[in-house]
Amino acid sequence: MIEKTVLANGVRVLTERLPQAFSVTMGLWVEVGSRDEDPPRSGISHFIEHMAFKGTERRSPLDIAREIDRLGGQANAFTSKENTCFHARALAARLSELSDLLIDLLLHPAYHPEELERERQVILQEISYQEDTPDDLVHVLFGQNFWPGHPLGRPVLGSTESVAHIDRRTILHYQRQHYQPEGLVISAVGNLEHQQVVDLVGEALGSLPMAPRSRQRSAAQSRPGLHVVPRPLEQVHMVLGHQAPSAVDPERFAAALLNLILGGNMSSRLFQEVREKRGLAYSVYSFLSAYSDSGALGVYLGVAPNRAAEALRVARGEVERLAVGPVSDQELADAKENLTGSILLSAENPETRMSRLARNEINFGKDIPLEEVVSQVEEVSADDVSRLAAQLLTPGELSATILGAATADDLTREMGA
Amino acid sequence: MIEKTVLANGVRVLTERLPQAFSVTMGLWVEVGSRDEDPPRSGISHFIEHMAFKGTERRSPLDIAREIDRLGGQANAFTSKENTCFHARALAARLSELSDLLIDLLLHPAYHPEELERERQVILQEISYQEDTPDDLVHVLFGQNFWPGHPLGRPVLGSTESVAHIDRRTILHYQRQHYQPEGLVISAVGNLEHQQVVDLVGEALGSLPMAPRSRQRSAAQSRPGLHVVPRPLEQVHMVLGHQAPSAVDPERFAAALLNLILGGNMSSRLFQEVREKRGLAYSVYSFLSAYSDSGALGVYLGVAPNRAAEALRVARGEVERLAVGPVSDQELADAKENLTGSILLSAENPETRMSRLARNEINFGKDIPLEEVVSQVEEVSADDVSRLAAQLLTPGELSATILGAATADDLTREMGA
Repeated sequence: MIEKTVLANGVRVLTERLPQAFSVTMGLWVEVGSRDEDPPRSGISHFIEHMAFKGTERRSPLDIAREIDRLGGQANAFTSKENTCFHARALAARLSELSDLLIDLLLHPAYHPEELERERQVILQEISYQEDTPDDLVHVLFGQNFWPGHPLGRPVLGSTESVAHIDRRTILHYQRQHYQPEGLVISAVGNLEHQQVVDLVGEALGSLPMAPRSRQRSAAQSRPGLHVVPRPLEQVHMVLGHQAPSAVDPERFAAALLNLILGGNMSSRLFQEVREKRGLAYSVYSFLSAYSDSGALGVYLGVAPNRAAEALRVARGEVERLAVGPVSDQELADAKENLTGSILLSAENPETRMSRLARNEINFGKDIPLEEVVSQVEEVSADDVSRLAAQLLTPGELSATILGAATADDLTREMGA
Repeated sequence: MIEKTVLANGVRVLTERLPQAFSVTMGLWVEVGSRDEDPPRSGISHFIEHMAFKGTERRSPLDIAREIDRLGGQANAFTSKENTCFHARALAARLSELSDLLIDLLLHPAYHPEELERERQVILQEISYQEDTPDDLVHVLFGQNFWPGHPLGRPVLGSTESVAHIDRRTILHYQRQHYQPEGLVISAVGNLEHQQVVDLVGEALGSLPMAPRSRQRSAAQSRPGLHVVPRPLEQVHMVLGHQAPSAVDPERFAAALLNLILGGNMSSRLFQEVREKRGLAYSVYSFLSAYSDSGALGVYLGVAPNRAAEALRVARGEVERLAVGPVSDQELADAKENLTGSILLSAENPETRMSRLARNEINFGKDIPLEEVVSQVEEVSADDVSRLAAQLLTPGELSATILGAATADDLTREMGA
């Protein structure tokens, strides 16, 4: 059972009672992420997320670490392009401790100057770590090339340069600007009562002064092109992508099925052509990145340098085949069964349920029951998928980023450029 | 409720009924892994696991992929140093389909010569992928240096050379030798009945001819030393390790607490000293690798090249401090609370429960109830942990593997060599 209370200042509190669970999972979601940053402050949302764990007015950093560990160690946070989330899971009897800790992290970070300098070094190491992980890095580089100059294209972590220069005053200002009641969603699921959660969070969060957010977001337009980033690696890591529907677009169900048919599962065209029939890659998949107003449908492959041109040709071939040819009834039926099955199976996971609850509120302002999602998926026709494919997967609109020991010449030929 | 049936030929069937679940999770465990290989066949256990998905007598590779996807896409397999496991999760109503598929993958792989050659290329790409992922690779290199010449030290994936040469006849022979009834454990949890599972798997698995396995395993002895693998990376990735208790050693509870206190959580000494106080690393942790007769307690750090020597000094210092100094009552109480909390929380995950059920059978021949584990953890004293630390963490026994842009000279000095 899902319940919702909106506090007087606009904070939304959502709960889903799962009476058979023995744990509770809570997430404090702030509608701010890297797309709300300008280039000099690139990475500031993520920096603020890190600083939450570095001391509050009442707790030292060590107090926070100890408290998290004593709750079972399942508290963490993440920053994405659109959201920042502080979340934790604990035994049901410890809901009030968990809630007290998360609220303190959210509302009262101390931003000690010394802690800030040390955490800057930690984040710079996180950036270095990403730089050393090519199948991660290639997605970051792809984003920059796909949406050049647009905030959605910038990395969540920021750059070495921007992170080096973000100062305490800028952090305080940005946090005040974006951590506003109307942008806060509290989502809790598990063995709990709605009123219990409202009582626990209501006082601290309900007393936040109301202030309108001055947030400006605009849809992104992708740019086609080929970008080769040479690096002496064992594999060539490629991401190819096209513009796709947003997370709230009525076409999102057709897009999800299109993604599955293209490369989203084992029986997909790409997995079969690239891995099963040709043994070109260990890792090959397509993915859908859907934001509030923009989206990308991409393909990743990691292949041997001497087969990079062949792999690019095959992957492009499959993308184009979907753009111009039909989707069979069998393919569509299989993709629907896969999608609805995985949606229902994932609903058994409390963290997934907590995220679903928050994301539906953020995206639609209401819950979308699982049954409704399943029935919308069932309504998509093969023609709907083909039409969407034809619209999105225009060869001239392809953006490709290739990282590794590849020569631009061979690849340019494969791109038909 | 946990139930166990041993078929006439020795196959063990274990189930745990979770009446409130709406899914079922099943794992077919074979007691064979990379430690059962000799150097020319390094990677053959993992190769066999891959081939299970490449066609059986009744199913083409595409049939298998489609069936997995239609079940919700949550079927997979993994190979470790000691086990190979084929597992899947699906809605409860689909238990018989899931079971039929997994048994077919286990018992009737076709090993088509063409599929074998293609899959060889896929695995070679998997090895290249690992080679490009330094925080993964450094663990593989550490294993080789820690247990040199011993099967436990060899990589699960094998080497480019060994994988290039494994042929069909060798695979058939190895599979016959190791996929024996007495080494099979079937573990199923969720909304199911024990007898239902026995009925589903009994006929196919119960009719396997009995044959004793000719398996030879011997405990591994670690070798101390410093190994620097130069590579032009943004970070220096280090693993430092000592010998540790096995998975069945009565000292395993003390070892688990020692690991948490050293670097297993946020309030641990290493996390606090390396990340929180000095900002040296984004990723720093200790880990326990416990096998049936051997174990390792290790530390991982990813740091900037110009601070590698300092990081090594700090990490070594914390390891030595634990070897010679006391563990406080507070530290111990916190570690116990963290351990028991995380054990109880993980029990809500059906995949974790399925693994626990199988691993307890493989390691102990019986179920170890969670309450018993918790009470054994509670019985460990601070002296027990200190004594174990003093015994394991001898400075002269340290084995270190360092990957990145580091010079052996600086590091050798830090190693006191």
